[in-house]
Amino acid sequence: MKALVFKGPGQKDLVDCPMPVIKESTDVIVKMVKSTICGTDLHILKGDVPEVTPGRILGHEGIGIVEEVGSSVISFKKGDKVLISCITSCGKCSNCKKQLYAHCSDGGWILGHLIDGTQAEYVRIPHGDNSLYPLPPDINEEGAVMLSDILPTGFEIGVLNGKVSPGDTVAIVGAGPIGFAALLTAQFFAPSKIIMIDVDQERLELSKSFGATDIINSGAGNAVEAVKKIVGEQGVDVAIEAVGIPATFDICQKILKPGAHLANVGVHGKPVELHIEELWIRNVTITMGLVCTNTTPMLLKNVESKRLQPEKLITHRFDFKDMIRAYEVFGNAAKEKALKVIINFN
Amino acid sequence: MKALVFKGPGQKDLVDCPMPVIKESTDVIVKMVKSTICGTDLHILKGDVPEVTPGRILGHEGIGIVEEVGSSVISFKKGDKVLISCITSCGKCSNCKKQLYAHCSDGGWILGHLIDGTQAEYVRIPHGDNSLYPLPPDINEEGAVMLSDILPTGFEIGVLNGKVSPGDTVAIVGAGPIGFAALLTAQFFAPSKIIMIDVDQERLELSKSFGATDIINSGAGNAVEAVKKIVGEQGVDVAIEAVGIPATFDICQKILKPGAHLANVGVHGKPVELHIEELWIRNVTITMGLVCTNTTPMLLKNVESKRLQPEKLITHRFDFKDMIRAYEVFGNAAKEKALKVIINFN
Repeated sequence: MKALVFKGPGQKDLVDCPMPVIKESTDVIVKMVKSTICGTDLHILKGDVPEVTPGRILGHEGIGIVEEVGSSVISFKKGDKVLISCITSCGKCSNCKKQLYAHCSDGGWILGHLIDGTQAEYVRIPHGDNSLYPLPPDINEEGAVMLSDILPTGFEIGVLNGKVSPGDTVAIVGAGPIGFAALLTAQFFAPSKIIMIDVDQERLELSKSFGATDIINSGAGNAVEAVKKIVGEQGVDVAIEAVGIPATFDICQKILKPGAHLANVGVHGKPVELHIEELWIRNVTITMGLVCTNTTPMLLKNVESKRLQPEKLITHRFDFKDMIRAYEVFGNAAKEKALKVIINFN
Repeated sequence: MKALVFKGPGQKDLVDCPMPVIKESTDVIVKMVKSTICGTDLHILKGDVPEVTPGRILGHEGIGIVEEVGSSVISFKKGDKVLISCITSCGKCSNCKKQLYAHCSDGGWILGHLIDGTQAEYVRIPHGDNSLYPLPPDINEEGAVMLSDILPTGFEIGVLNGKVSPGDTVAIVGAGPIGFAALLTAQFFAPSKIIMIDVDQERLELSKSFGATDIINSGAGNAVEAVKKIVGEQGVDVAIEAVGIPATFDICQKILKPGAHLANVGVHGKPVELHIEELWIRNVTITMGLVCTNTTPMLLKNVESKRLQPEKLITHRFDFKDMIRAYEVFGNAAKEKALKVIINFN
C-alpha cells in the first residue's frame, strides 16, 4: 500500500509500505476513505516531536471502512463505516476510568506518533472497540473527519475547560482550525460575545460568518486594550489560547476578569512567563491538556443533525496521490488561504 | 481607643486613634475580643502592598462583641458575639451573586488594607449582615479567630480549588499557617497521602501530629525527586503552593501527574516561569485566588463540633498592649518557633 512516511526532520515521502496486520486481538484494520493534515503533523516534520522516528507513517485523523477485526472486537465488523479518533484508549486502565483517555496507559495519542497513522491506504487501530466510532450512513463525511481531532480538541480543551456559560464574554486567540472549532462549539452555550483575535485579517473576516461577534487584528495594535474596549476594563470570562506561543498566552493572561478561565489549547515549545504577581488575587483558573475525545459521540450527533457543520472549515481537497502537494498547501496556509484540507483515498 | 497603625514601610506604632463611627446604615461597630497577625500584615509593613497608606490601622482577623449597628442591619444587635471575616461583601453585586465575595464591587479584602482594620479596640465592619458571622456561646474563641482568614483560605484556595478527593496524593509546599490550614481541611476528603514540604524541620515534624503522612525537607535535597520517590514517577494528584515564591511554585509544577491540580495559595510578588512546554499535554489545572469565605459557616460548624481544632496552631499569646512585641515574635517565626499568635483585648 501507499503511505506518507516521515523520513527525518524536513523530509517526507509517499512510498510503498507493507499492509498493516492484526497484532492484538483488540486491533481493527481500517481501509481509509478520507483523512486530513493537522498542524501537529507540521510540527513533527519540523523535528519538534522527537519521539517520532524516521519511517513512521504520519496522520491521526480520518474515516474509513473496517477491513478486518481482531478476535476480541465486538462492536465492529468488516464493512462498517467508522470514525477514527486521534486518541486510542483501552477503556480499562485507571486513567481511562477517570475519562483521561489522552493518558491511557496503553494508548493516548499514538497514531502517527508512536505507531503508524492514517495517512496511508490502511491503518491498524489498537483497542478498536474504544477508539473507533460507528458513522451513520448519511453523515457528511468531510464534516466527520473534523471529529477525529479538531472539533473535540477545540470543544473539550477550549470550551469545556474554559467553562463557557450563557452570557459569558469569550476571547479566542488564534483563528486557525482549532480556534474555529472552539468558535463553533462555544455557541452551544450561548455566550454574549465571542471575540476572535489573530494577525490574519482574512481569517478574522471569515470567523464572522462562523459566529464571531467581534474581531481584533493583533498585528494592528494592542490586542489587550482592544479587548477591554469591547468588554470593559475587567476583562473577559473566558480566554481560549489556540496558537501555542508566549505572545498569545500573554494576551490571554492579561484579559482575565476576576473568576475567569484561561483555557490553553495551543501546543507550546517554550515556557511562558506567568504573571502570578498580578493574577494570584484574581481567582482565575488556567487549564491545558490533550483532548480526551470523550465528547466525540455527542459532537457526532450534532454533526448528524447539522447543528454543527464543520465541513465548512474545509478549503482544499486532494487525492491521496497528491499528498505531497497537500502538505505544501497546508504548510503555507496563509498564502494559500487554507484552513483544513481533505485527503480522498481511491 | 488604642490601635496598631501603619506609619509607612518598616514603621508601625500602637497609638491613640478616634473611635470608629457608623458611616453607612449597613455598618456594624465591633468591640474586639481577640485578633491575630497575618503574614499579609508583614508584607504590608515591608511596603509590598502600596495601596496601604500611612495612618491605616492594620488587621483583618478577629472576633468581638457588637457595640453598635446601622439602621439597616437586621442580623446583629448590640452584645452579639461575632466572627469578623477578612472579606467584606455586599452580597448583592454581580460578583457576590457568583459567590466571588473576594471581588465584591463594594468590598473584598478591604479591612486593614483600604479601610481601618481589626488590630484596634474597636472596628467598623461595612456590610455587617454579610461580613460577620454569629458565634455560638461555647465556641473555642481562639479557634474561631482562625476562621477569619487562614482556615477558609487554606480550604477554599488550597483544598477545594485543588479538588482533593478520596485516595488522592496531596503535596503541600509550605508548612506555615496557611499550609497547616490546608493540611487540616484536606483531611475532610480522605486523601491517601499528604506530603508536607518545607525547609523548617521543626514545622515538618509538627505537621505529622496534624495529619501529614510524609514530610520532605526541601532544604536538604531535591524535593521533586523526593516526592516521586513517595508517590511514583507520575506525580501527585494535587499540589498546594502555600509560600508564594518562584522556587516553591516550581516544585509544584514539576510533581503534577496527568489530570492533576495545582492550587496556588501563596501571595506572589514576582512572575513565575510556567513550563507549559511540558505541561500542555498533561491535562493539568492551575488555580489561584483570594479567599471568598463562602465556606466560613461550614468551617464554623466543624470547629463547634471539634472536628477541626485550629486553636492547636496557636503558639503564642499577647495582650493587645504588647502588640509591638507580638509583631516581633511573629516576624521572626522560625527563631521564635511561632505559628499563629493570639492578641487578647482588655
